[in-house]
Amino acid sequence: MDSYPLTLLTVLRRARREFGHQLISYRADDGDRVCTFADCFGRADRLAAALLELGVRPGDAVATLAWNTREHLEIYLAAVSVGAILHPVNLRLSAGQITDIISRAGDRVVFADAGVLADIGPHVRAAGHGIPVVALGPPPAASPVDHPPAYDYQYEALLAAADPASFAYPELVESAPAAMAFSSATTGPPKGVCYSHRAMYLHTEMLTSAQTWAISSADAVLPIVPMYHVNAWGLPFAALWAGARLILPGRRPDGAALVSLLAEATFAAAVPTVWIDVLGELRRTGARLPRLRLAVCGGAALGPGLLKDADEMDVPLIHSYGMTEASPLVLVGRPRPGADLAGELRLKQGYVVPGLDYSVRDERGGEVARDGRTPGELLLRGPWIVDRYLGDDPRNEAAFAGGWYHTGDVVTIDAAGYVQLVDRMADIIKSGGEWISTIELENALMTHPGVALAAVVGVPSERWQERPKAFVVRRPEDSTAGVSATELQELLLDRFPKFWLPDEFEFVPEIPLTSVGKIDKKNIRTWPGGS
Amino acid sequence: MDSYPLTLLTVLRRARREFGHQLISYRADDGDRVCTFADCFGRADRLAAALLELGVRPGDAVATLAWNTREHLEIYLAAVSVGAILHPVNLRLSAGQITDIISRAGDRVVFADAGVLADIGPHVRAAGHGIPVVALGPPPAASPVDHPPAYDYQYEALLAAADPASFAYPELVESAPAAMAFSSATTGPPKGVCYSHRAMYLHTEMLTSAQTWAISSADAVLPIVPMYHVNAWGLPFAALWAGARLILPGRRPDGAALVSLLAEATFAAAVPTVWIDVLGELRRTGARLPRLRLAVCGGAALGPGLLKDADEMDVPLIHSYGMTEASPLVLVGRPRPGADLAGELRLKQGYVVPGLDYSVRDERGGEVARDGRTPGELLLRGPWIVDRYLGDDPRNEAAFAGGWYHTGDVVTIDAAGYVQLVDRMADIIKSGGEWISTIELENALMTHPGVALAAVVGVPSERWQERPKAFVVRRPEDSTAGVSATELQELLLDRFPKFWLPDEFEFVPEIPLTSVGKIDKKNIRTWPGGS
Repeated sequence: MDSYPLTLLTVLRRARREFGHQLISYRADDGDRVCTFADCFGRADRLAAALLELGVRPGDAVATLAWNTREHLEIYLAAVSVGAILHPVNLRLSAGQITDIISRAGDRVVFADAGVLADIGPHVRAAGHGIPVVALGPPPAASPVDHPPAYDYQYEALLAAADPASFAYPELVESAPAAMAFSSATTGPPKGVCYSHRAMYLHTEMLTSAQTWAISSADAVLPIVPMYHVNAWGLPFAALWAGARLILPGRRPDGAALVSLLAEATFAAAVPTVWIDVLGELRRTGARLPRLRLAVCGGAALGPGLLKDADEMDVPLIHSYGMTEASPLVLVGRPRPGADLAGELRLKQGYVVPGLDYSVRDERGGEVARDGRTPGELLLRGPWIVDRYLGDDPRNEAAFAGGWYHTGDVVTIDAAGYVQLVDRMADIIKSGGEWISTIELENALMTHPGVALAAVVGVPSERWQERPKAFVVRRPEDSTAGVSATELQELLLDRFPKFWLPDEFEFVPEIPLTSVGKIDKKNIRTWPGGS
Repeated sequence: MDSYPLTLLTVLRRARREFGHQLISYRADDGDRVCTFADCFGRADRLAAALLELGVRPGDAVATLAWNTREHLEIYLAAVSVGAILHPVNLRLSAGQITDIISRAGDRVVFADAGVLADIGPHVRAAGHGIPVVALGPPPAASPVDHPPAYDYQYEALLAAADPASFAYPELVESAPAAMAFSSATTGPPKGVCYSHRAMYLHTEMLTSAQTWAISSADAVLPIVPMYHVNAWGLPFAALWAGARLILPGRRPDGAALVSLLAEATFAAAVPTVWIDVLGELRRTGARLPRLRLAVCGGAALGPGLLKDADEMDVPLIHSYGMTEASPLVLVGRPRPGADLAGELRLKQGYVVPGLDYSVRDERGGEVARDGRTPGELLLRGPWIVDRYLGDDPRNEAAFAGGWYHTGDVVTIDAAGYVQLVDRMADIIKSGGEWISTIELENALMTHPGVALAAVVGVPSERWQERPKAFVVRRPEDSTAGVSATELQELLLDRFPKFWLPDEFEFVPEIPLTSVGKIDKKNIRTWPGGS
């Protein structure tokens, strides 16, 4: 029995045999449409034949630059169907970043939404690797004669010309590569990872567990998270596996459009900014989402205000936490018996999903107490945690030392197993053998009405190794009278041990943010007083 | 990541780390008691140390003869903890059968409930293999001097003497054997199978899927099915994995005791006779089971009458179907969208659980239509379907031909994937190239008020290969006037094609049943007119 391989082909076979009549609702450029799993597989078979025709072989990578569309799902299916490596690329990166990733991945074909084609297509074609570019969606207007065309093939024409009879599922071993992803790194080039069929099969099955997201055929699953973002957190495969209806929102829709899609959904997943938009729209219109049984928020932490809003509008919002290196799901913030999620617990990221092993370790490598207070770095290993970055990546040694993936996230864990993110390893302040969370200090500072933004970084200290220093932006209306360092110290003294208090407060006109809106501490550390 | 092994040790580690405070309720000889997972693991660690002390090594088999008790669960955990093979033996077999199975399995130690010890212990000890016998429960009164003692060790004494610090979980590969089971065969010696750690891990995970039994930490799981019956269908491991409360009923309790246990349970599993007792008790007392969310019936089919009773008493009874060769779960009769389980569908055994591949094949090996009518043999393969019987079993070739397990069960499958058992391959009648279900004919005959029992077997026919013949027991009060062959033929003609009708009806005073209450067709075929 152990010779029966765990592959995504089992997921595909099950979806087409058991759930052919299940529906996929999708937003196309010309309106809302519906098709069945069977329709989608029919077209995916044609595309699989076309991929073979284009010379794609098992183990070759297939890149996509696409939103959550029906065509994107078809490419997911077709790539897996021919044993190729599915490689969704973040279409919001720059043309230079995208061509670099495509080149590093060794992609053999690129599928691109019409919306990005004009920008990206010429770059990919000019990169000189001879990789064919396939245009998704309606063919763009003819290029001016003096411009090279942005694509080599038009998707629908490719499908129409293909002979699905020329294709059958290959025999795959479970260690065969199934998908690939690159995550942007704060230092160095993007980090590439590859997921085996076995890893993706087990991750898919895990998403249907009653212990995690419990996706079943009774669900209507809406992945708002883009399909280029770690395979929309695995949702397309989980929906196929469980026979759940899929709702594909197309190019990221606005708040009003999302609310109309969410009205049909029982399960949806998105980053906080999306949920902020949705809650705003619900508050404005008075609309509610009675079918929604689980609203998953990942990518960043939810604040208490957002959770209170969600409660007021009956949106069953929970945390989940994951990362590219983990396929991605690691933590789920669902209630366990005896764990009151109405309280503090709900601000935590959740418990480790079944199947993963973990360790929370202090600076000396010892396991920290499960007291919900002692911070440590989260280490992971298990069937869907990668064990290396692609290529000869110099970051491999540190990231995967000792057979564990070192997440770089500093967390606490409580007796019930709920994990809370408190900082990044790169940011946390090591002072006199103890760790001080910069995020907790910043959050506390920002509760002061006179503070617009606060950033805390560690500055070198001969005696203590590092000491916290706070950079504070006063609220404009408050900038002359101004909140003082003494006031802020008193505020912090109420909540934290004395040694946590920043020795220095510097009031600044602004604090730099990264492209995704996080405080750019790497930048601050380059300031004269920042390190 | 593919080097991370799928083993039951992952299940055990998760249970003890995440759910130490979860409860186990159990019936002991002296009353109802409660302990925690942590208590149970603490004792299992001691037992693991004792097993090592007794010379048990990874890959050795540990036999149990026990009901669903706390001690039995501890042996489950301890056997897995030392990398041994858990081998629960059906304690209702004869002493001769039991010693034969223990000898064929090569068990290295036997744990036996006090209730069976007096009968079985001396036989095992006399078999001369030098296998130590451990007595579970209170030590029996001292044996008369001229009798050899029925056991070598007393369980509690063994635990008290053990040093849990002497033991740590071993490193196991996922192909390592985890458990063993023997099923009685109608021909030849019992068939033994061995389950790998990988198979049991994947089966455990599958039981927590929202697509199957959806066991979660919100559940209180009551395995009424004995733990010697394919590991109580996997429920102890699923409850540990999910952090569900466990309710262990001890020695099989009567209807009234069951109802009191069921009042606490959210999930329970048992064979039809148990559910008949429970429903009878509910009807008699007016008690109801509001916490019960799923009542699983396996081992034999439920009739429409029993399902109607269950509906009337709000017992959420569903079919599940499995077999020793499948670890055991194969089919689950839960509703899918668009499938109305209130009707005929509920009489079917259900859909194939995610992870298994299957094929329903006619006599010529072709896939039958998914029309809910055409019968074929159910073939299975997948990560928890065994691929051989233990030893040099001559039945291996036929049972596992072509990489599939041939279940010997004749089924139909409908467009929605719901499977219904219609007969056994050994019993179904092959007539003129078509198959005739003996079970369907028998069920129809038994709807006649004048029929107490009916058995249909195939008799050789030169022209048609086989033709059905019916043996009928008239109801006693009806035996003089008597239902006639003509009446019965008319009844069948209403429901079946003409060629299904038995050519011959023989009225007999009684029909032999097997030890589990099924019609003994092998016996009938030895009758003068029976073949």
